[in-house]
Amino acid sequence: MIVACIQMNPVIGDKPTNVSRSADLIRSAAERGVDLVVLPELANTGYVFRDRQEALDLAEKVPGGETTAVWSELASRHQTTIVAGIAERDGDNLFNSAVMVGPKGYIGRFRKVHLWGDEKKIFEPGDLGFPVYQAPFGRVAIAICYDVWFPETFRAAALQHADILCVATNWVPMPGQPADRPAMANTLVMAGAHSNNLVVACADRVGVERGQPFEGQSLIVDRRGWPVAGPASRLDEEILFAQIDLDPSSRRGVGADNDVLQDRRPEVYAGIANLRS
Amino acid sequence: MIVACIQMNPVIGDKPTNVSRSADLIRSAAERGVDLVVLPELANTGYVFRDRQEALDLAEKVPGGETTAVWSELASRHQTTIVAGIAERDGDNLFNSAVMVGPKGYIGRFRKVHLWGDEKKIFEPGDLGFPVYQAPFGRVAIAICYDVWFPETFRAAALQHADILCVATNWVPMPGQPADRPAMANTLVMAGAHSNNLVVACADRVGVERGQPFEGQSLIVDRRGWPVAGPASRLDEEILFAQIDLDPSSRRGVGADNDVLQDRRPEVYAGIANLRS
Repeated sequence: MIVACIQMNPVIGDKPTNVSRSADLIRSAAERGVDLVVLPELANTGYVFRDRQEALDLAEKVPGGETTAVWSELASRHQTTIVAGIAERDGDNLFNSAVMVGPKGYIGRFRKVHLWGDEKKIFEPGDLGFPVYQAPFGRVAIAICYDVWFPETFRAAALQHADILCVATNWVPMPGQPADRPAMANTLVMAGAHSNNLVVACADRVGVERGQPFEGQSLIVDRRGWPVAGPASRLDEEILFAQIDLDPSSRRGVGADNDVLQDRRPEVYAGIANLRS
Repeated sequence: MIVACIQMNPVIGDKPTNVSRSADLIRSAAERGVDLVVLPELANTGYVFRDRQEALDLAEKVPGGETTAVWSELASRHQTTIVAGIAERDGDNLFNSAVMVGPKGYIGRFRKVHLWGDEKKIFEPGDLGFPVYQAPFGRVAIAICYDVWFPETFRAAALQHADILCVATNWVPMPGQPADRPAMANTLVMAGAHSNNLVVACADRVGVERGQPFEGQSLIVDRRGWPVAGPASRLDEEILFAQIDLDPSSRRGVGADNDVLQDRRPEVYAGIANLRS
């Protein structure tokens, strides 16, 4: 299968522009016959909300909102699957979500489990766990940005037999990050993929929004954790493409007698105070 | 505190040479007034045993064996703490272990939890979990080589309030590893440190033993996961030194409102099938 990660630069608050731009980029990716397109976190609204009210005014029902309808129509027309970040409103609750739509319409959603910075003042923490959805090409798990700081995210995907983890993200620079180093997020993603025998496809945003710079460096890594596309640039909109073999027969251990999932020792972990609770 | 990681090249089966060489290198490190010295996995015996019998003949009681006595005497004389890999015999059981000795003698041991390759035919899997020991400078957890492929290893250390994870290792090349890339183990260690706010000090071996090459690239990373010493070379014996601030007041989150340990969501992880068992 072919996966595309769209690195784009949404404009805060300008939903029509963002959705239109996302549609242009999805169409560009679709010309290459991709099976899966991943877009950044909060791709339809931008990220740095002034307050909860600004986010509430921009958020939509998922499914049922206009952005999901546009993306769904594109997935259907181009016979592809799209995973994209979206501000979700559910009654009085707001979630930093990602929606997954396929050739036949709405498939499912993910709500960011680990909230970053001011998100804690704006969004409810995700209450759906880490669902895994069936797509035509395989099993798909979803994470958003700070979720990949937590190894449990990758474990949740792998232990539920996901083939690929889609990461919709708005990575920001880490404190103390050396200027000459790739984003720590790239390291976290490579490690998470390697330790879980899991393909990971990350679509980040670029640009500066209300003073907040973003990292770019979107990345697609194979089951072994090695980059197969990207990292993309730090500054520019860009589409990454990677051909990935998700067939179970292509799965290989890290050694002749070693498989990172089979070699886990849950009976040992069970004895560690606080690891489970 | 100052930590040193000794990258050395043990000779398979030649314990007198290996212990003598380790003593020379420990003395060299001690001249710099180090608080902690980490040595590689199976530093006293070498790694590629022909069979279980060869390992049995070389293994020692821990404590009580001659190698532990030598390292303990060095720790006492130089007022330092040593963590070093050793083949341990306990009755009829064999463990791929690490011993920790300090100024006052034996402190504790760790038995490798996740066995690699032919180790499964030679050693029993570790039955002590992930103990954390108090040293004069802070709380110390230990892991051996393949253990760092498992994020639970870092979590076990961090959730038991370890300040530093010592990794005694004999890293080998991973299948599919691009020649121009640092060892995947370096990536795993950076990610594990960053996601757990944990200093990690890795002492690897170099050389080729019975056809098996080792990776070198010993590494010390800070709580944020950034290298503060190394990676060392792929081929040569070398001692890495790093000054580390383990004072709790120096601990910083990844963001103004974010701490990777406090932001965990155990109630979500509890709902994931197989994550805990």
